Amino acid sequence: MSKEYMHFDTTEYARRLKKVREAMAKAGVDVLVETDPANMYYLTGYDGWSFYVPQHVLVSADEGEPVWVGRGVDLGGAKLTCWMKPENVLAYPEVLVQNLPKHPSQFLAQEIEKRGWGKKRIGVPTDCYYFTPRANSVLRKELPNAKFVEVDLLVNWVRLVKSEPEIALMRQAGKITEKIVDTFYRVMRPGVRQCDAAGEILKSCAVGTAEFGGDYASCMPFIPIGAQTAASHLTWTDQLIQKGQSTYIECSGVRLRYHSPLARSIQFGKPPQKMVDVNKVVLEGMEAALDEARPGKTPHDMAMAWQKVLDRNGLSKESRIGYPTGIGYPPDWGEHTASLRKDDRTVLEPNMTFHMILGMWMDGWGFESSETFRITDKSAECFANVERGLKVID
Amino acid sequence: MSKEYMHFDTTEYARRLKKVREAMAKAGVDVLVETDPANMYYLTGYDGWSFYVPQHVLVSADEGEPVWVGRGVDLGGAKLTCWMKPENVLAYPEVLVQNLPKHPSQFLAQEIEKRGWGKKRIGVPTDCYYFTPRANSVLRKELPNAKFVEVDLLVNWVRLVKSEPEIALMRQAGKITEKIVDTFYRVMRPGVRQCDAAGEILKSCAVGTAEFGGDYASCMPFIPIGAQTAASHLTWTDQLIQKGQSTYIECSGVRLRYHSPLARSIQFGKPPQKMVDVNKVVLEGMEAALDEARPGKTPHDMAMAWQKVLDRNGLSKESRIGYPTGIGYPPDWGEHTASLRKDDRTVLEPNMTFHMILGMWMDGWGFESSETFRITDKSAECFANVERGLKVID
Repeated sequence: MSKEYMHFDTTEYARRLKKVREAMAKAGVDVLVETDPANMYYLTGYDGWSFYVPQHVLVSADEGEPVWVGRGVDLGGAKLTCWMKPENVLAYPEVLVQNLPKHPSQFLAQEIEKRGWGKKRIGVPTDCYYFTPRANSVLRKELPNAKFVEVDLLVNWVRLVKSEPEIALMRQAGKITEKIVDTFYRVMRPGVRQCDAAGEILKSCAVGTAEFGGDYASCMPFIPIGAQTAASHLTWTDQLIQKGQSTYIECSGVRLRYHSPLARSIQFGKPPQKMVDVNKVVLEGMEAALDEARPGKTPHDMAMAWQKVLDRNGLSKESRIGYPTGIGYPPDWGEHTASLRKDDRTVLEPNMTFHMILGMWMDGWGFESSETFRITDKSAECFANVERGLKVID
Repeated sequence: MSKEYMHFDTTEYARRLKKVREAMAKAGVDVLVETDPANMYYLTGYDGWSFYVPQHVLVSADEGEPVWVGRGVDLGGAKLTCWMKPENVLAYPEVLVQNLPKHPSQFLAQEIEKRGWGKKRIGVPTDCYYFTPRANSVLRKELPNAKFVEVDLLVNWVRLVKSEPEIALMRQAGKITEKIVDTFYRVMRPGVRQCDAAGEILKSCAVGTAEFGGDYASCMPFIPIGAQTAASHLTWTDQLIQKGQSTYIECSGVRLRYHSPLARSIQFGKPPQKMVDVNKVVLEGMEAALDEARPGKTPHDMAMAWQKVLDRNGLSKESRIGYPTGIGYPPDWGEHTASLRKDDRTVLEPNMTFHMILGMWMDGWGFESSETFRITDKSAECFANVERGLKVID
C-alpha cells in the first residue's frame, strides 16, 4: 500500500477482520466471498472504479490476510490501495473479461482450491451488487466438493457500528456536505440552466474544503425542479429554472468513501400554503424522530414518533424514513441492513450512523429534508450543521 | 411521458422493439425480463438513478407495450420519463425494499401471472448488473409453471448498431467531450490539488455546451497522476500535482445518456524518452487500427493491426483495445458485446460505435489515448475532434 492511501492503521483493519470472523463463525462459514465494493474497501482498503467487472475479496476463518482477486489492469491500483502483502493481491486473466461463457469465477474457484479451501464451507452473497447468477453458478460448478452457505449482508451488519476513525471521516464528510448545500442555495436561480447549477454542485463535491478534499458520491446529487420534484431520483436536464418553481437537493459530501448525505428544499417566490404546511410537519417530525435516536431505542420507535406527527396532521408516507450510511460506492450510499421503519426492532447502539430522510412525494410536487447522524451515548449528533426548513428565495 | 423527456419519437421505440422481438424469437423467449438500466432506457425512456433497488422492464413477444416495474417512490419519475401508457408503469410495495427474505421478484412474478404469462418461456439474464442470484431464484420459485431461458446481452446486441437519432446524440456527446478535455488541459498544473482539478472537470461534464447541456457519465473521470498512472481505474486524491509527473484523463461527455469517451495524456516538463517512445507507438497503432475500422472488417482485424505495431516496437499489451459504447449507466459505459480483440470476429457494420482505448500500463507509470467512433459506409468517424498525442505542459 502506498502511504497516500493509508487511511487507517493496521489495528483498525485487524479489528474489522475479527468482527467479520466472529460473524462468519456464527453463520457457519469457513471462507467468505465478498463482492460489494463498500465491503471490499472496508476489509482491504481497495479503492478503484473497477466494480464494472467481477472482483472479489476472500476472507478465511483462519488468521491469514484477506485476498483480493480482480482484473489484471486493476492489479496496479490494488497494490497501491490494499494493505495486504503482494501475494494476497491477485489478477485473473484478461481472456475472462466480458467473454461469455468464460467467467472470472473460474479463476476464483481455482484460487480457492489452490489455498486448500476447496472442501470448506464457502459463504456467498445472494442479493448484493456485482455478484450475478452466473458468477454464483460457475463458482458452485467449479467447486464440487465445497459446501455453499448463502450469507447476505454479513459484512454490512458489522459496518453498522462505526469506529472512532470512521466517525472522524463522517464528520469531515458532513463539513463537505455543508459546502455543497451552500453552493445549492447560491447557484439555484430562475433563468439558470439546471445543468449549469448541477456543474457547480458537482464541483463542490470534489473540491471539498480547504483542509481536505472531497470524493465522488455513490449517487449523483438529486436536484429535481418543478414537476420533477414529485419523483425521487431524477437527475438534471438542461431546461431553465422557472420563477415560482420549487426544488430540493439530496446530496452527500464524501471523505475517503465515507458519506454524510443531506436533503434541503427551496421555493422560488412565495411558497404555496401546502408547501408551508408540509415544511412545518417535516420540521416537527424530524425533531420527534431524532428525539428517539438514542441507545436502547429502535428504528420502530423513531418511525412511530414520525408517524404520530403525520397522523396528527392528516398526512401519510408509505416509504421508510431512513437507513444506515457510511462507506459507499455506486449505485448506493445505504448499507442495506436496518431500516428506519415500523417493523425494524434493531436496538440502537452508540456510533451507529443513519441517514434519516423525510421525503414527501405528493401529486405533482415534492419536498425533502434529511439529516445524517450518529447515535451518541445518550442522543444523536448530526454531522452537518445546516439550518433546517424550507429556504425561500425571491 | 413529459415533453421534456421525449428524446425519441415513437417510431424509434417501435423500431427498437421490433428488433428485440426478432432476437427474442430466435432465442425462444416469450417474455423478456430486463434489468440493465441502459437496456431499460433504450426500450422505455426510463431515466432515474434508482437502479440501486430492483427494477425491471418486461417485453412480451406479442404487440403490447413494454411494462416498467419498479419501486413506488420512483413511479413519479417513471411516469415522467417512460413513453408507455400509465397502466404499463407499475410499482411494487415498499415493504419489499431491502427487507430480506421478502423480495421485489415476488411482485414481479405476480404481475407476470396476472398478464397471463405464467406458463410462458421467460428470458432472464445471468450476468448483467442489478439482477442478483436471489432475484433469479425467487422469480423461478414463484413461477413454477414457466419455462426459464437464460439469455445474456440480448438487448445489448441490438444496441450495437445505432440509429441516426442515436448517432446525432453521440456527436453531441463528442462535443461535450471536447470541452472536458479542454478543461483537463487548462486546470491540471503542478501545485494544484488533484481534487480541485477534478472539480472543474466534473463541472464541464454537467455544463456541456452553450447549445445543449451535459449529463453525468457512467464512470467518474479517471485522472491518475504520477505513480497512480500505472493503475487504470483510480480516481483523484487531495494531494498536490507535482512537477515532472505525468497524468492522463479517461472521461466521457454524455448527452441524454449517450456517451463518447476519450483519453489523453499530459507530461509536466520534459517527457522521459520511454514516454516519447510509447506516445509514438500509440499514435501509429491508433491509425493502423482505425484504418481497419470499416464495414466487412472485424475486431480481429483491428486488434491485429495494433499488434503488428506493438511487435515492431517490442511492446506488449495483454488487455483488449476497446468495446462498443453508447447508452450508459453506472458502473459502465461499455455495452459488453463485441470486444476489440484478436478472437472477436463480429463483422463490422455502418453505425456500430466503439471506444478504442490504447492504455499502456507499465511498471510504475502509464499512458492512455483513445477515440470513440462510428463505422461509416467506408471508414470510421471520430465523434470528438481533439488533437492526438502526448501534451507537454511546462
